[in-house]
Amino acid sequence: MTYGVIGTGAIGGYYGARLAQSGQEVHFLLHRDYEYVCQNGLRVVSPQGDFHLKHPNVYNTTSQMPKCDVVLVCLKTNKNHLLRELLPPLLHERTLVLLIQNGIGVEADVQEMFPGTWLAAGLAFICSAKSEPGLVNHQFYGSLNIGNYSCPQPAVIEALLDELHRANIEAKELEYEKARWRKAVWNMPYNGMTVALQCQTRDLMENPASRNLIWEQMLEVCRAATALGVEGVDEAFARKMMEMTDAMIPYSPSMRLDWDFHRPMEIQYLYTRPLLMAREAGSPMPRLEMLEAELRFMEAKASKQ
Amino acid sequence: MTYGVIGTGAIGGYYGARLAQSGQEVHFLLHRDYEYVCQNGLRVVSPQGDFHLKHPNVYNTTSQMPKCDVVLVCLKTNKNHLLRELLPPLLHERTLVLLIQNGIGVEADVQEMFPGTWLAAGLAFICSAKSEPGLVNHQFYGSLNIGNYSCPQPAVIEALLDELHRANIEAKELEYEKARWRKAVWNMPYNGMTVALQCQTRDLMENPASRNLIWEQMLEVCRAATALGVEGVDEAFARKMMEMTDAMIPYSPSMRLDWDFHRPMEIQYLYTRPLLMAREAGSPMPRLEMLEAELRFMEAKASKQ
Repeated sequence: MTYGVIGTGAIGGYYGARLAQSGQEVHFLLHRDYEYVCQNGLRVVSPQGDFHLKHPNVYNTTSQMPKCDVVLVCLKTNKNHLLRELLPPLLHERTLVLLIQNGIGVEADVQEMFPGTWLAAGLAFICSAKSEPGLVNHQFYGSLNIGNYSCPQPAVIEALLDELHRANIEAKELEYEKARWRKAVWNMPYNGMTVALQCQTRDLMENPASRNLIWEQMLEVCRAATALGVEGVDEAFARKMMEMTDAMIPYSPSMRLDWDFHRPMEIQYLYTRPLLMAREAGSPMPRLEMLEAELRFMEAKASKQ
Repeated sequence: MTYGVIGTGAIGGYYGARLAQSGQEVHFLLHRDYEYVCQNGLRVVSPQGDFHLKHPNVYNTTSQMPKCDVVLVCLKTNKNHLLRELLPPLLHERTLVLLIQNGIGVEADVQEMFPGTWLAAGLAFICSAKSEPGLVNHQFYGSLNIGNYSCPQPAVIEALLDELHRANIEAKELEYEKARWRKAVWNMPYNGMTVALQCQTRDLMENPASRNLIWEQMLEVCRAATALGVEGVDEAFARKMMEMTDAMIPYSPSMRLDWDFHRPMEIQYLYTRPLLMAREAGSPMPRLEMLEAELRFMEAKASKQ
């Protein structure tokens, strides 16, 4: 299949480059470092081996890009309104759009913009950063869970999984809701708390008070998911997330990096949307509602400075 | 009656000086600015009129102080273990000890140290700061609610109220539990949140997200108090606290000042104790538990620096 990558950052750059290196045809949309990558290519530094794409297919506008079989959307969700303009040139009748994005509710909103388009969620368990122009710094993990949202052809998802595996990417299919809510069990506590307390994951795990708070927040997500009828988002899974985080090096989640680099935070899809869904399902998440309020406060204060 | 003041700071200095100025015999325990006050006296700057006590009775140890009819304990609660040493020289058989301190649970703990002693709670609604040696800067409000904890002689409380009134201090008696929990409705949200978000009361009231959070936290306190059988700590009272805070100038509560000046915060009595009582009564306060965890985290982090 042919691939398009909208948003060639830490995530889109990593998965797109791996696919290209495995021999797939991949077309990258770049923004700030377009000129640099034109001249120097795209490099990936990774514990699974470094590599360098010398002449990737790069673009600074999607209007020049070909139609693709799979489009990886790896924008920050705050920029999803741009998809209305960016996406159409890449779509044919059977294009699968994989939203490798944070939070809950993105598929519903993008589906509203493109009612007939096949959508799937991509949940990246990866620690990666774009530290310089043209350089993706892959730190650890890297698996991708795929949740089919509206693709009527299971064979397309299967083909995608096959090609991801051939690109040395650990990938599997999960039921859509389960995939999104499982990711939220990690995302909702750590993203906001590392901003609110100006720290990294390790700090939160080492202090008994914050460790217990993270655990309580994870349980809030599990209870909300259960109230929404999503299965398999339970205490046992939360325990795994605690263990995984204990095993990680001190880490700054994407929201912490957004805050540090004065970029807007993804509060809407990471907090507001799932908090509303949970409340409507009769299982509100008070600690995570409080965290959302703190983040909103911090963002408003920072925007005044 | 004769008065002793243990802890001549923003609170003890204010109420003690007003009593002295009205003609009462008041004995002040000082610490850091003992020498200064010996030489320069104690000044109060206040919207109700400035005044200067040129030669107050000051001490730097309670062993030199006379027995008193009323002792105002105005230490930070973190220092209450010192009372074991400090208090005995001031006590006669009918001394009333008024704990003008923050939080919930102080009377129970002090009573354990001094089983026979008459105790009452003093709830100060006052904005005051000790800005320089020997100078109490009274900004606004100033009323004192008294809650009788273990004084078997109502006449003593009445006499105290009388003398407070004559000293131009607005004071009234409230049922003990109601007095403590009403104060908590204001104290628990604002003290911690101004630290967690590094802001003042006004900032919390102006941002819609934090304003709503403060309101939800107040309701948590009301529900806990009700579950504990305390009457009159309800939504109507919380609404008054919101209005009062709206009417205040931007204000830094005592915990924010403690944080700013690298003093220990009163987490134990302001949060841990009431949170435990609420949980045991079947009405936990999740947002305030989260706030406690954030404060514990911040304190631990600061102590490492």
